[in-house]
Amino acid sequence: MLTNISMKSAKEILLNEDIEPKTTDVSILDSLDYILAEDIKSNMDIPPFDKSLLDGYALRSEDTANANAENPVTLETIDNIKAGYISKKSIGKGQAIRIMTGAKVPEGADAIIRYEDTVYTDKDVKIYSRLEPNANIAKVGEDIAVGEMVLERGKIIGPADIGIMAFLGKEKVKVYRRPKVAILSTGDELIGINEALREGKIRNSNAYTIGAQVKKIGSEMKMFGICGDNVHSIKEKLCLALQWGDIIITTGGVSVGDADVVKDAFKEIGGKVLFWKINMKPGAPIAVARYRDKLLFGLSGNPAAAYVTFEKLVRPTILRLGGSTEYEFTKVKSILENGFIKAGKSDRIIRAETYCRNGEFFTRLSNRRSSGVLLDLSRTNSLFHISAKAGPYKAGDKIEVDLLDYPREHK
Amino acid sequence: MLTNISMKSAKEILLNEDIEPKTTDVSILDSLDYILAEDIKSNMDIPPFDKSLLDGYALRSEDTANANAENPVTLETIDNIKAGYISKKSIGKGQAIRIMTGAKVPEGADAIIRYEDTVYTDKDVKIYSRLEPNANIAKVGEDIAVGEMVLERGKIIGPADIGIMAFLGKEKVKVYRRPKVAILSTGDELIGINEALREGKIRNSNAYTIGAQVKKIGSEMKMFGICGDNVHSIKEKLCLALQWGDIIITTGGVSVGDADVVKDAFKEIGGKVLFWKINMKPGAPIAVARYRDKLLFGLSGNPAAAYVTFEKLVRPTILRLGGSTEYEFTKVKSILENGFIKAGKSDRIIRAETYCRNGEFFTRLSNRRSSGVLLDLSRTNSLFHISAKAGPYKAGDKIEVDLLDYPREHK
Repeated sequence: MLTNISMKSAKEILLNEDIEPKTTDVSILDSLDYILAEDIKSNMDIPPFDKSLLDGYALRSEDTANANAENPVTLETIDNIKAGYISKKSIGKGQAIRIMTGAKVPEGADAIIRYEDTVYTDKDVKIYSRLEPNANIAKVGEDIAVGEMVLERGKIIGPADIGIMAFLGKEKVKVYRRPKVAILSTGDELIGINEALREGKIRNSNAYTIGAQVKKIGSEMKMFGICGDNVHSIKEKLCLALQWGDIIITTGGVSVGDADVVKDAFKEIGGKVLFWKINMKPGAPIAVARYRDKLLFGLSGNPAAAYVTFEKLVRPTILRLGGSTEYEFTKVKSILENGFIKAGKSDRIIRAETYCRNGEFFTRLSNRRSSGVLLDLSRTNSLFHISAKAGPYKAGDKIEVDLLDYPREHK
Repeated sequence: MLTNISMKSAKEILLNEDIEPKTTDVSILDSLDYILAEDIKSNMDIPPFDKSLLDGYALRSEDTANANAENPVTLETIDNIKAGYISKKSIGKGQAIRIMTGAKVPEGADAIIRYEDTVYTDKDVKIYSRLEPNANIAKVGEDIAVGEMVLERGKIIGPADIGIMAFLGKEKVKVYRRPKVAILSTGDELIGINEALREGKIRNSNAYTIGAQVKKIGSEMKMFGICGDNVHSIKEKLCLALQWGDIIITTGGVSVGDADVVKDAFKEIGGKVLFWKINMKPGAPIAVARYRDKLLFGLSGNPAAAYVTFEKLVRPTILRLGGSTEYEFTKVKSILENGFIKAGKSDRIIRAETYCRNGEFFTRLSNRRSSGVLLDLSRTNSLFHISAKAGPYKAGDKIEVDLLDYPREHK
């Protein structure tokens, strides 16, 4: 069994687990933020016809060849087209048709002049400048031709993509199904959040933090309760969790002490342990196993360790199984606001608060001694990876941090 | 009626509309990404007791005063505490109790030594170094004391905040209710997405793009269908939309042409038009009205104009009514990849694609002639505001852009 591996190796091992993302068909409005699982080619020309880009007059550009401010050309208005309607008339020499934005350009016309640039009556319109052919017309198929690739498989579906699918008349779309994540808490010290505290016990916050971390990336999650620090009860709950979930996350029971029971439970239900423990602070105690096409993550019971290992290892796995190819956090260059002097024997992931000020990023590293500080996690929106023996870092240094979230401006 | 105002004025007018955000109680897991509408103070000390930070041995630090690698101190092990349990024994001189991470430190002990740093049997443990008082102990209330402010009203609720509330035993939380957004499409040219195209008609994509833009910021939305370019049918649908929505968005019918009917419909149902048209490309045609404590946004039928005015004006309004104080996009400094040479008489908002490479931002401006290009919107993830007469900009210039979304790495 692999043990005490690096974060990099842990990531590689997880990446190499050949679990195929599954697909599902959803209505386009429900596809927001999902990963597209099909190529979408256009079934039509866009625009579907030569279209006016303005409210104005459709005309023959050659009729305006000699028009200028002193010598306007007067054209006879022979029709009035609203968007959505077409004119049955064809424009001849010296004629124009009033037209609305988005309407089909009438036969004979090859240019549109903006309404405000003319002087018009019901019967005619004066033009004061020369128009080029195709002025203010979007030609049929100009944006997208029939058969042209519109949206490629693998794209994260955004609002405009949903608009495009609507435009093409596509009501349903194939997306990658997101893995369902089952959460199981272990630890004799844990009580439910609706229970009164009693000596030595604490309420089960990890399941909620992790549940919300799962929800934040759009996956469905379900809590499978709390079980004590013994292999038997963990096995029982794991079996239930495996019936429902694609990914199982446990917290607690993976440290180096007496109660390292989760790893044993993973084995006893028939799971193959992929690795146990990584050389990383926080988050060192972690057991990862595979059972059929499901992955089991045994995270630490320490809130900070569980939080960080979720973000660094579980999150990219969930995203990858949901069809994403952009499952890593974006790194930005940021100016350090406070120093970090501790030398370390193992790699460290420092929780940090990164914000934008005048367009640039600044980062404050967490300086709380303990890694069990909930409030510190509340402020964490970025992570700074410090390699073993690297540093020290001082205020003003430019570093690179993982952005966990949309970056916020400083207030 | 205010008309042809600047984007800045439009924002100020909207900001000054005194509509109070409403609150609602939700279960903590459902509160993710909502804005907290109450101050949360701690109802307990955290940790609730002196807690071991390690798996190891609890002992009296003074017993280790003379311990070193050559002369270890041997302590008698008198008990074994798992997390969640407490020892009834008190540690005396020369004694130790085996303890797990998170367990309550037993009486008499004032330090914990890490398990791996000792040599132990069932009966005793050898210590090879001196321990300071409080070593590896989190003291009761050290993180948060009873009554201390934990989460302040106005905070965006993140996963760790949900964990904190769980820890405090809080099952429900007061958050700001998000406004419900009704979407109404106007235009004789529009047909439903399930209809076959016929000459002069296009499918209604704007409602879907905008619907998804609304969903993206977590608000509920409902489409109220398509109505023709006439005041009567718009009024009818508006009344239905107002019965359900807190904010109404229409598309189409607000340009300078014959079919500028939305503004009239806003007035005829009793709405007060706050402004009409802004000096901005795209997005100039826009009508904004207030009806009781609801806001009505008449956006352009042009997809790009509707998209941009949604992001710049409607989105911050929805967020503000949802209790947010961080409703503006974050601006980042970015290196321009392509130039922009057009001079402009009005302010412009250029659609752009911004990505991160080696920690720095780069921006490609949209160079599509038409503002009606759906594919271009699909790539848009940032906006570059160019003031009237500003520019030209050349490749390599450092600019500031509005980030519409979590920034992505370049691939």
